[in-house]
Amino acid sequence: MYPNWILQRAYLTPKRSALTFEGKTWNFEQMKDISVQRAYQLSSLGIEENSRIAIIGRSRPNLIFIIYACMHLKCEMVLLNRKLAIDELAYQIKDSEVTYVIADDEDLPLLPNDINVLKFSEVENCKGTPIQIDMEWSIDQTTSIMYTSGTTGFPKGVRQTVGNHQASALASILNIGLSEEDVWLCAVPLFHISGLSILIRSLLYGNAVKLYEKFDANGAVDDIATGRVTHMSLVAVMLERILNRLEENVLKASPKFKIILAGGGPVPKDYLLRAQKVHLPIAQTYGMTETSSQTATLSNQDAIRKLGSAGKSLFFNQIKIADADKPFVEGEILIRGPHVTPGYIGQFSEKSATIDGWLHTGDIGYLDEEGYLYVVDRRSDLIISGGENIYPAEIENVLMAHNAIREAGVCGMADETWGEVPIAFVALKNETTKESILQYCQEHLAKYKVPKNIYFVESLPRNGSNKLMRRKLKELL
Amino acid sequence: MYPNWILQRAYLTPKRSALTFEGKTWNFEQMKDISVQRAYQLSSLGIEENSRIAIIGRSRPNLIFIIYACMHLKCEMVLLNRKLAIDELAYQIKDSEVTYVIADDEDLPLLPNDINVLKFSEVENCKGTPIQIDMEWSIDQTTSIMYTSGTTGFPKGVRQTVGNHQASALASILNIGLSEEDVWLCAVPLFHISGLSILIRSLLYGNAVKLYEKFDANGAVDDIATGRVTHMSLVAVMLERILNRLEENVLKASPKFKIILAGGGPVPKDYLLRAQKVHLPIAQTYGMTETSSQTATLSNQDAIRKLGSAGKSLFFNQIKIADADKPFVEGEILIRGPHVTPGYIGQFSEKSATIDGWLHTGDIGYLDEEGYLYVVDRRSDLIISGGENIYPAEIENVLMAHNAIREAGVCGMADETWGEVPIAFVALKNETTKESILQYCQEHLAKYKVPKNIYFVESLPRNGSNKLMRRKLKELL
Repeated sequence: MYPNWILQRAYLTPKRSALTFEGKTWNFEQMKDISVQRAYQLSSLGIEENSRIAIIGRSRPNLIFIIYACMHLKCEMVLLNRKLAIDELAYQIKDSEVTYVIADDEDLPLLPNDINVLKFSEVENCKGTPIQIDMEWSIDQTTSIMYTSGTTGFPKGVRQTVGNHQASALASILNIGLSEEDVWLCAVPLFHISGLSILIRSLLYGNAVKLYEKFDANGAVDDIATGRVTHMSLVAVMLERILNRLEENVLKASPKFKIILAGGGPVPKDYLLRAQKVHLPIAQTYGMTETSSQTATLSNQDAIRKLGSAGKSLFFNQIKIADADKPFVEGEILIRGPHVTPGYIGQFSEKSATIDGWLHTGDIGYLDEEGYLYVVDRRSDLIISGGENIYPAEIENVLMAHNAIREAGVCGMADETWGEVPIAFVALKNETTKESILQYCQEHLAKYKVPKNIYFVESLPRNGSNKLMRRKLKELL
Repeated sequence: MYPNWILQRAYLTPKRSALTFEGKTWNFEQMKDISVQRAYQLSSLGIEENSRIAIIGRSRPNLIFIIYACMHLKCEMVLLNRKLAIDELAYQIKDSEVTYVIADDEDLPLLPNDINVLKFSEVENCKGTPIQIDMEWSIDQTTSIMYTSGTTGFPKGVRQTVGNHQASALASILNIGLSEEDVWLCAVPLFHISGLSILIRSLLYGNAVKLYEKFDANGAVDDIATGRVTHMSLVAVMLERILNRLEENVLKASPKFKIILAGGGPVPKDYLLRAQKVHLPIAQTYGMTETSSQTATLSNQDAIRKLGSAGKSLFFNQIKIADADKPFVEGEILIRGPHVTPGYIGQFSEKSATIDGWLHTGDIGYLDEEGYLYVVDRRSDLIISGGENIYPAEIENVLMAHNAIREAGVCGMADETWGEVPIAFVALKNETTKESILQYCQEHLAKYKVPKNIYFVESLPRNGSNKLMRRKLKELL
């Protein structure tokens, strides 16, 4: 059994700053008081302890209060991605069989109609009757569920337990250290593990979070240059904008600023060199929803020496390459440790996440002679666009449901701003136009998943067993 | 499953300093190489994996190499207290049923005759055949066993598991932070949890340990004033000597020095005020063998404001007072958390360490309105002398085995140097002298347990049910 993070942190350091947003600050005692009140309100409105609910909302304090309230109720929280299309959200809500979707009032238009919705305002305005809040949580209890796609194109709801989150947060300090003065800038989505893990680290570490509703390069640069924040998580596209602003304004990172954790694919060498010039330390990370954030991290000291590497595993973790008995042999990256998900929910609940305790990532990589990990190819032709994972199969499934399309293939194309963007190749069975297909995609897919271009072809490259060879798609251009 | 701490730390930061002793330094890779070699040697000499062995030795690197080697073999290590008398060691060796005692050559005279001894020199000079070293340890595996007495006077062997040690080390950083530059001065015995926990923290944190064979106030002051070390664990008697030296030499602690963890009873207010003047931050701790080191800690900021308090529980722990439903009510201190021992070995192996998950410490205390713990009375009339726990019942048992003594009672008396020392009250059945009794005690008890004085009385104070009332003993003076 482990303590309820929110109650324990409020007991230990009640007056320490917990959250700053648009000039307003809450300490840990206030976070506890508000979230406990919200738990009473949710309970009065019919949210039962240990039930599974979904949450959708903008990155604002009221979303955090609801998330913490649901933790008090030991609910399994499905954190919905606000960028998804209605069809995609409907799938997740149905698959997860949540009893309610607790939704930011602003986000109601994003949701399908035939579901139980509790608006944030309803919760906040409800009277609420006190209930007993548990002081302890079980290590196996599911805290959060996030959907991620795989080779099949059907998103799977990944469980992230109390133990997963704790192991991840603790391993991270064994890597980068901890000080009472640390302040994390959070400008990544709270519905992604990158954002949620910042909140959980804050509870365990007793550190303040400076929350941004949206990423704002000017604000971030100001915080970094003055040392108002010490840590930040980001993806390469955000780093590029920060570097631009620092360079334009001839600014450097404050000596108080400690580290940027850069996830979602490798950081280009050019960025690393520019970051050095403005004294911005960068730790590149490799992680995924199934590992509740980082599984490996490259230290800033090694950034150039081990260019392209994702670093070494964190303390509790092990990484190995399938069927590789020596360094530099490429193979599937396997991960093991207390941060690895126990499995999935919904239609994939029978599927085991691990084989003999090892998570098979589908990613291809190798370890060098010192044990540094190099990720050579992301799983299942994964496209990473501005830090968001895009699975070609998911887009292909949507395209093939179009009444004019016979077959479809999707791959990523390099893009200066986003790293990569998806493009689609389609063979028609009926006549249609590119515009009509794009319009159709916009209705069924999150904006960032809509192909940047549609190419009409006679047929798609397939192998002997008729399997689509996505890597050959670009040759059709 | 968790990684073998020694192998994982050597993989992550091979070149970082791990240990300094008398001017020589070993990095984590060297610690691994030497300890793996020692594991091969121990194995060749008949030490089996998962077997239970005892270890005795001076606080020198070769003791650490043997301890780490036994960790590689996943042995249950009974760490023997070098200050004990032969009879006391014989009891522990018999009760724990160890297959071997691995002993520093210098310590052979301390040991009884009829046991299997492996000398350090034998191990170091043996060829050693490579065996497979496990990369992973189970969380429930017993790492170490330390004997501690209770009300009965019979020392009990307390299990400290991989999970206990890890939880303790991780909770401590959530309290005091962590930085790559941290260096711990270790001048407390490695056979006590205060010393062993410094080694284990070093493996988890990746920090250097500066080891002292014996406490040396001049050396410690030099290290603290120059900032060569950042952390130190000690008991009040050591603190007093450090303060004396700092004051005599008009020195202050370096700004690089972070914190002293002071255990084994409260630190007098006078020391705290003197420490402030020489810029020496002090965190008072409350812990015991059964909690694998600290369970509560008072921060330096609170040292004066909460004078006499042992602070708040660490993050994963809970402390409550039995039958107290509000602050300031005194009662038995109960402790819960992943750092609490699963139980005992030997003749007490059937005895549960906890009731409904709570360790009943036998200590009396209360919590104030903010949840700060105050320890009012140590368990079972415990005497704490220079940081060593002395249980009156244990000394009484020895005294009553003397052929001239009819009954005996032991209590603590205030002592300027040691905090407390034991004194004995005896009623005789045959004639004898004080000198004869003291001589007898020296043969059967560790030096620090030998009563500082023996008082002859007609009878001992007993309650209605004829139980010895130790608190009334002093009234006989």
